[in-house]
Amino acid sequence: MLIVGEALNTSRLAQGVRHIEKAVTARDAEAIARIAVAQREQGAAYLDLNAGTLTSGEPEALAWMTTVTQEAAALPISFDSPNPAALRAALAVYDARYGPPLINSISAASGRYAAILPIARDFHARVIALAMDDDGIHQETAGRVRVATSLVERLLADGLPIDDIYVDPLVFPIATDDAVILTFLDIIPRIMDAFPGVHTIAGISNVSYGLPARAHLNRALALLAMGQGLDACIVDTQDRPLLALITAAEALLGRDESCRAYLAHARENAC
Amino acid sequence: MLIVGEALNTSRLAQGVRHIEKAVTARDAEAIARIAVAQREQGAAYLDLNAGTLTSGEPEALAWMTTVTQEAAALPISFDSPNPAALRAALAVYDARYGPPLINSISAASGRYAAILPIARDFHARVIALAMDDDGIHQETAGRVRVATSLVERLLADGLPIDDIYVDPLVFPIATDDAVILTFLDIIPRIMDAFPGVHTIAGISNVSYGLPARAHLNRALALLAMGQGLDACIVDTQDRPLLALITAAEALLGRDESCRAYLAHARENAC
Repeated sequence: MLIVGEALNTSRLAQGVRHIEKAVTARDAEAIARIAVAQREQGAAYLDLNAGTLTSGEPEALAWMTTVTQEAAALPISFDSPNPAALRAALAVYDARYGPPLINSISAASGRYAAILPIARDFHARVIALAMDDDGIHQETAGRVRVATSLVERLLADGLPIDDIYVDPLVFPIATDDAVILTFLDIIPRIMDAFPGVHTIAGISNVSYGLPARAHLNRALALLAMGQGLDACIVDTQDRPLLALITAAEALLGRDESCRAYLAHARENAC
Repeated sequence: MLIVGEALNTSRLAQGVRHIEKAVTARDAEAIARIAVAQREQGAAYLDLNAGTLTSGEPEALAWMTTVTQEAAALPISFDSPNPAALRAALAVYDARYGPPLINSISAASGRYAAILPIARDFHARVIALAMDDDGIHQETAGRVRVATSLVERLLADGLPIDDIYVDPLVFPIATDDAVILTFLDIIPRIMDAFPGVHTIAGISNVSYGLPARAHLNRALALLAMGQGLDACIVDTQDRPLLALITAAEALLGRDESCRAYLAHARENAC
């Protein structure tokens, strides 16, 4: 399971304060570095960076966050922006020694596709491919699978290797409709069976928006999605039980030879 | 999800002592009643009773446990014994006002089947049907599905309603082989798709035998199995995070209208 840490997002609130935005605006490298390192220690293999609240200064902010984050955590980055200027500015300072960058995200919407594809090609980036098009998001499984399928086909035709494509079937809050997660879970194996070697990814925390005791829903969703084949997720790595459950599920799903990673996790976390 | 509480088993150890066996031998009704009530409050809908360590006195012990447990917790019972005399003694004092009894278990092994079937019929009991026969347990999915299929067909032919059949695909410790849980997870939908209306059940805690940090593996297994369709499980109801995760998964799988049970659980547990 590829774990992407979601914490470095300027829209995040802690005690009512946008603490990441504050640190980025003040160019407080120490604060950003601390969160980057913490996420790596908690299990992140990629760090998502989002400076979307800084509308005017997003390119400079994202580039600065990239340098600070990579110097501190030595991890590859997921660039979470629809803004081509911000993506190019950040990718220009990206250090590919830590692994390929991930662009979060492209979609089948024509403007978005045309804007993001050349950047992905220029920088040999992986992409998160959202299952949506010019009509927006299809509520039904069949429609959303159709959009995801044609998006993957188009990315392949445009030269992206299948291993660089991470399809996001889209997680909606369960509070909005009892069936949204059944749809999401249903899409994962359809896409992965249709395109052997493609990846699937999801922003797990969305599921619990508007409900109490959110961590239980987030953890349950991660496990149910793994059972369907999901192999990457964007999560709150501070949720230690979530990371322990993911490690346990990897062992149960035969992806951890002789439970080695599970045993190492149990030892390191004394849990 | 039908939750069966596993705590009232005379083989269980607490601080190196078989505390349930001790309480049963001493006919300490208060101790047994306390554990029965606690499991109900923690979320059990059935209580499993096992007096298997008391080889000579098992029938009397199981009957006594039945009366004490039902008077205290007002729940139906899962009778966990291969001993026809113990099952008959306990079922004779069983109060069916609380729901149908569950016999844990029958299998396709010829002696076991012949001994248990008449008891299930005489007492209108539900049965846990183990996927094993005279050759023991098949390691491969296909063999185990074949055994389970013929067992369900035979139970139906012998007059048991499909709603009374709980197939147990068998959970083995992940420490024994990396693939045992993939096999288990694979069997669940095969059986449920072949026999619409049949139930599946599993003893979750077996998975973690011999490993540290067992709760993570137990919780992960329960969620992965629910995703495959498992609708009953035998668990340690003292594991509150497990119960919270199961409640969350029910909501995500569309089995909890408007998240009502999830919200009630969050409220009651202040979590």
